[in-house]
Amino acid sequence: MPAMNKHFTFELLAQDGQARAGVFHTPHGDIPTPIFAPVGTKATVKGVTPAQLHELESQLILANTYHLYLRPGDELVAEMGGLHAFMGWDKPILTDSGGFQVFSLGDINAIDNEGVTFKSHIDGSMHRLTPEKSIHIQENLGADIIMAFDECAEPYDRAYNEKAMTRTHAWAKRCQTAQTRSDQALFGIVQGGIFPDLRAKSAEYIAALDFPGNAIGGLSVGETKAEMHEILDIVNAILPADKPRYLMGVGTPLDIVNGVLRGVDIFDCVHPTRLARHKAAFTRTGRMNVGKAVYANDPRPLVEGCACYTCQNFSRAYLRHLVNQKEMLGGTLLSIHNIHTLLQLARELREAIITGTVEEYVRELGTGD
Amino acid sequence: MPAMNKHFTFELLAQDGQARAGVFHTPHGDIPTPIFAPVGTKATVKGVTPAQLHELESQLILANTYHLYLRPGDELVAEMGGLHAFMGWDKPILTDSGGFQVFSLGDINAIDNEGVTFKSHIDGSMHRLTPEKSIHIQENLGADIIMAFDECAEPYDRAYNEKAMTRTHAWAKRCQTAQTRSDQALFGIVQGGIFPDLRAKSAEYIAALDFPGNAIGGLSVGETKAEMHEILDIVNAILPADKPRYLMGVGTPLDIVNGVLRGVDIFDCVHPTRLARHKAAFTRTGRMNVGKAVYANDPRPLVEGCACYTCQNFSRAYLRHLVNQKEMLGGTLLSIHNIHTLLQLARELREAIITGTVEEYVRELGTGD
Repeated sequence: MPAMNKHFTFELLAQDGQARAGVFHTPHGDIPTPIFAPVGTKATVKGVTPAQLHELESQLILANTYHLYLRPGDELVAEMGGLHAFMGWDKPILTDSGGFQVFSLGDINAIDNEGVTFKSHIDGSMHRLTPEKSIHIQENLGADIIMAFDECAEPYDRAYNEKAMTRTHAWAKRCQTAQTRSDQALFGIVQGGIFPDLRAKSAEYIAALDFPGNAIGGLSVGETKAEMHEILDIVNAILPADKPRYLMGVGTPLDIVNGVLRGVDIFDCVHPTRLARHKAAFTRTGRMNVGKAVYANDPRPLVEGCACYTCQNFSRAYLRHLVNQKEMLGGTLLSIHNIHTLLQLARELREAIITGTVEEYVRELGTGD
Repeated sequence: MPAMNKHFTFELLAQDGQARAGVFHTPHGDIPTPIFAPVGTKATVKGVTPAQLHELESQLILANTYHLYLRPGDELVAEMGGLHAFMGWDKPILTDSGGFQVFSLGDINAIDNEGVTFKSHIDGSMHRLTPEKSIHIQENLGADIIMAFDECAEPYDRAYNEKAMTRTHAWAKRCQTAQTRSDQALFGIVQGGIFPDLRAKSAEYIAALDFPGNAIGGLSVGETKAEMHEILDIVNAILPADKPRYLMGVGTPLDIVNGVLRGVDIFDCVHPTRLARHKAAFTRTGRMNVGKAVYANDPRPLVEGCACYTCQNFSRAYLRHLVNQKEMLGGTLLSIHNIHTLLQLARELREAIITGTVEEYVRELGTGD
């Protein structure tokens, strides 16, 4: 484990209840928290240019190690100067470890204490990921924040969660040992399914490894909201307050509000762009199907008062026409709106935390619980 | 025919050989000529936002009457404030008459002197377009430049071309009579296939109708380049010099250069965006298949020295990755580059005409003949 770059410090600026406002410093810029990170799976946030992401004031985006390892290959990305240069994004980037995708997309051939052997979902070729290999790939990709390689278990299977958690802990230490670059912050990941005692144990173990940031994995994968919230309360009471906390793969407006209220700082999710490609737009607290006939001659923007490019320039009638005609622009404009909605929600939560008005803000929004 | 809005005047600023530089004034802004108009078939230039079109300095875009009549319907577009408001584009728009699409996409049921009965390519429903109906639809759509309803014949069939031309001429007069709005410029269309005598006769007939602008239809539909050039020479020698000349559906770099050299002022084509969705990028004078393996680790932009957003920010390696992964961003970034290439070519030609250096410019470009 190299000496950590001085850039990676987390400043806690304000706290309101459990909700926190801070800044995480990285070599490619400061990340104000709470923050939502749009997902650029294959080194592109689907349908949105980096210029549009800048205009949206995105500050952190995510890319997927599993996908980029398979195509175009991490060696190629490294040869092209790393992810920032490759995809034309000069602000912070986070890569996941590949773990989640291996377990959800790959055809698992074998899991052992050393790593995972799997078949590519693209061409069936055999590959092996280990903690060391995941770190090596992520060092080739060159993101600012990289993730420990973890095993994601089915959330209700206690026996499997015990085993996967133990392996995840051992792998977390091996990832620390494997890291050679000092300009990347390696985050640990808490696992343990929906089991409070396992989650507490995992949070304690990961916290003790003193990562510059900590993540909560294995949520939003089928458990109830009540279970998710209970786990967040347990884990965040244990994870250190002076490090950012990242809730992986979570990103509806409601989940972000409830995560922030429970002390989460960073979120990512494919929802904004995936929903957009399926005709759905976020409202302030839910979603609407833009393809519905009721919008055919509706001159209003998706959301009244929304400051995004889409709402400032286009009617529901036009957007309905685009999505029903399967025009690329429909997916792009809905993606812009959906990303804006989550970024703006995070910005407003941050402002409310700083001014000590989170409770009122959430009550007015009507999404908290 | 209403009194023509004073906005629709054409100023000829310079001529170099047969190549012309001018300005066509419209209610939504001045159109510098020569110009290329990107095509927004269904009220969207595929994959490109209006903001990106502004950034590209697009000044005129085209939309298709046939498509918009079928979906979402011209009445709906009118109810939403017309095409400019509907699609969020405040600069000039041109709509075609629907003629070309009826003859190329529709399942023709009957053609008679009154009009055309056809089946929708979407749902098989029966529709009838007449010159009067086409003008009515285009008045609902509300573009700045609208087109006379014409019949497009197979270019080598003389008997059919004679008949179609006669009908096109009668329909042109009926379109003039049908027009009720004074804030739209109605352009006539010259037909006649590849037959010089028919083309001359058609140009004389259309010129005599004194439209504020004239178009050349039925080219780039299978004839040779030599035939296209011969027809352009014949027709443009007859069409009035004080009205803009629009060569419909033509838009490769080479065709634009050769059209400008023969006195054409306005071009449109789906090529830039359609090629982009099929992995092809324009070079200065040809095209390249961006998906090819040779570009896998090529750090260069598509075209060295190109000022477009795509070339300023992304490598061939990244663009190849995007197009081969079928990422939406690939189509968008290639579309931006391809549109820029044709707009920039038209701008450079205009500058060369104004400075009297067209011959040198084209010689250096290496595309003229």
